[in-house]
Amino acid sequence: MTTIAVPEDSPFGLANLPYGVFSTPGTAPRAGVRVGDSVVDLALALGDDVFARPTLNAFMAQGYERWVEVRRRITELVAGDVPDEAVHAVGAVTLHLPFEVADYVDFYASEHHASNLGRLFRPNAEPLMPNWKHLPVGYHGRAGTVVLSGTDIVRPRGQRKAPDEAAPSFGPCRRLDIEAELGFVVGAGSPLGTPVPCDDFARHVFGAVLVNDWSARDIQAWEYVPLGPFLGKSFATSVSAWVVPLLALEAARVPTPAQDPEPLPYLRENAPWGLDVEFAVAWNGQVVSRPPYREMYWSPAQMLAHMTVNGASARTGDLFASGTVSGPERDQRGAFIELTWGGREPVAVNGEKRTFLEDGDEVVISATAPGADGTRIGFGEVRGRVLPAGS
Amino acid sequence: MTTIAVPEDSPFGLANLPYGVFSTPGTAPRAGVRVGDSVVDLALALGDDVFARPTLNAFMAQGYERWVEVRRRITELVAGDVPDEAVHAVGAVTLHLPFEVADYVDFYASEHHASNLGRLFRPNAEPLMPNWKHLPVGYHGRAGTVVLSGTDIVRPRGQRKAPDEAAPSFGPCRRLDIEAELGFVVGAGSPLGTPVPCDDFARHVFGAVLVNDWSARDIQAWEYVPLGPFLGKSFATSVSAWVVPLLALEAARVPTPAQDPEPLPYLRENAPWGLDVEFAVAWNGQVVSRPPYREMYWSPAQMLAHMTVNGASARTGDLFASGTVSGPERDQRGAFIELTWGGREPVAVNGEKRTFLEDGDEVVISATAPGADGTRIGFGEVRGRVLPAGS
Repeated sequence: MTTIAVPEDSPFGLANLPYGVFSTPGTAPRAGVRVGDSVVDLALALGDDVFARPTLNAFMAQGYERWVEVRRRITELVAGDVPDEAVHAVGAVTLHLPFEVADYVDFYASEHHASNLGRLFRPNAEPLMPNWKHLPVGYHGRAGTVVLSGTDIVRPRGQRKAPDEAAPSFGPCRRLDIEAELGFVVGAGSPLGTPVPCDDFARHVFGAVLVNDWSARDIQAWEYVPLGPFLGKSFATSVSAWVVPLLALEAARVPTPAQDPEPLPYLRENAPWGLDVEFAVAWNGQVVSRPPYREMYWSPAQMLAHMTVNGASARTGDLFASGTVSGPERDQRGAFIELTWGGREPVAVNGEKRTFLEDGDEVVISATAPGADGTRIGFGEVRGRVLPAGS
Repeated sequence: MTTIAVPEDSPFGLANLPYGVFSTPGTAPRAGVRVGDSVVDLALALGDDVFARPTLNAFMAQGYERWVEVRRRITELVAGDVPDEAVHAVGAVTLHLPFEVADYVDFYASEHHASNLGRLFRPNAEPLMPNWKHLPVGYHGRAGTVVLSGTDIVRPRGQRKAPDEAAPSFGPCRRLDIEAELGFVVGAGSPLGTPVPCDDFARHVFGAVLVNDWSARDIQAWEYVPLGPFLGKSFATSVSAWVVPLLALEAARVPTPAQDPEPLPYLRENAPWGLDVEFAVAWNGQVVSRPPYREMYWSPAQMLAHMTVNGASARTGDLFASGTVSGPERDQRGAFIELTWGGREPVAVNGEKRTFLEDGDEVVISATAPGADGTRIGFGEVRGRVLPAGS
């Protein structure tokens, strides 16, 4: 038996207990929980085959009461002795995409980000559209290209047309960007025809991950009117390996900023689901931005309520992301197009002036939040390196 | 043994042989092929367990050579005698969604439709956006709400704001519409980073289905700027029960209309994939429109090439639809917003003036195409009835 040592300042202490999927040379992909620098094999430790599967989906589908019960059992388990064969060093395992993505939706919930993008994409118009403060604007993305943190990102090719060019040309993206976001994973779905009220959020959403919504700004700018972003986004979306349970985020709940005008009744919350999550965006190892999630105008409970209010079903594995997290300050912007103001105001990265991503660049997005025991819990990271466009 | 009788004018003759999924009181959902008014149980008839699954996905994933081989074997089989227990009357079986939808993408490939919608949604601007003739405009839809023909459609609720209203209100959709489309089902996927050239279309796309992309025009008009349609579409998308193999559509291939300007090289076809498919749209039993698919500006091979040119992978079960099929004439328009010009020019349906869909209305979209043996092959139908908004 093993007692798992948790360093005092670990972002993976007992207040966190995020779930992931791991394999070892002798173990097929299966569910694990991270504790300190260890991964506990849940199928072995709890004796439950639902954790012996290659994704968390079957467990997530079991619903809220099970999530509570399993978290309680894990808490008891790791406070005592765990069988040796159920404990692995995190550095010795291979991590996998923790859930099978059903539908992927991306919102646009930061007023700072939406205003900045409006100014950059539509310089001669009001930055916020008339609908923006009435509903959480969102759109569907490509579920099949959601990849695990650490996956290299090949620079996409596509059609680009600068405003001063007569016709589009085809070639590698020239304005490759990131978007630092928080993603929410639906565990328990909802049937067709049954909207999910804001107050039922925690009964449906299992947990949260970090998301990097890689964006090809030149491709996006040319294609996105009138049906929205498509190839400018669909080449890759990276997510972190550990799903932080919503149950671990109780201490992070804060009110959203004041919403004016008051939202329609279906978007009103009785208890707030704003989240005090602090992001850090590192560009080639240097932190260039610290976006504050507590500034997000729309809460994830409002996003889920909106997404289902027309009767659309939700499924286990649905991923919906917040949209870029940007605060009011320049060094709180979660996309480089905002941080460098469309490339016109470069930032210094390790002494080099940078605007958009260059081949070989690496971006690491991380985040922490207050945990129930006074520690800070961590989301780990979502990491990606840019490779040159393929031949 | 049974000899399957095929009526001479059957749209399901030997030139068609579409695949579906059916069950009977004694048989769990499994693959079948439709021949005349019969369904042949493929797991039994061919002795292959890949057809004993509840979707076609595993078979579709086996790839082009297998599709050719199985079609040859079925052709031989049904020309002779088939074991009694493998043959069911189509009226005696329950049909199911024939494939599990991975990602769902909807294009906008009819110049007539895009021009009409442009005039209706943006009356003071050029109807076609500058990008429209350079690339097949498309966006991702909600895979989880793709439903089988025959599923009732509950009128969605949502936010609507007419141009003359000061603020949005919430309630049942007041402008519920259809879109008659052809959908293409990916059988053999493509890996991340590997675009599919136009000329490889038939090696990846298994077959085609009819699609009704139900649309809440008032919800869509209020929400869609800048990120595209979302709740105005995501409540339901209906597909027909029979997947017509691409191999059955060889005789239907025609050139697309002239494309000017010439598309960029990755969008050029060496052999045409326009399709001479004739649609009929029946509103409460009366045919109100006959949209001609051969008028579509962009071919489905161009759609797939575009969708993957940024390196996005395709997966077995991906569904991409053409967008509304509309021809140049009024009675060739595949959406009621066009047919009734935004509701201002009602059509007579069984003597009643109609604009948008009313509760209880039923829409049946059907289509046929020339088959290799001189007959016309049928897509069957995609049917849906509108139920009142839920409480």
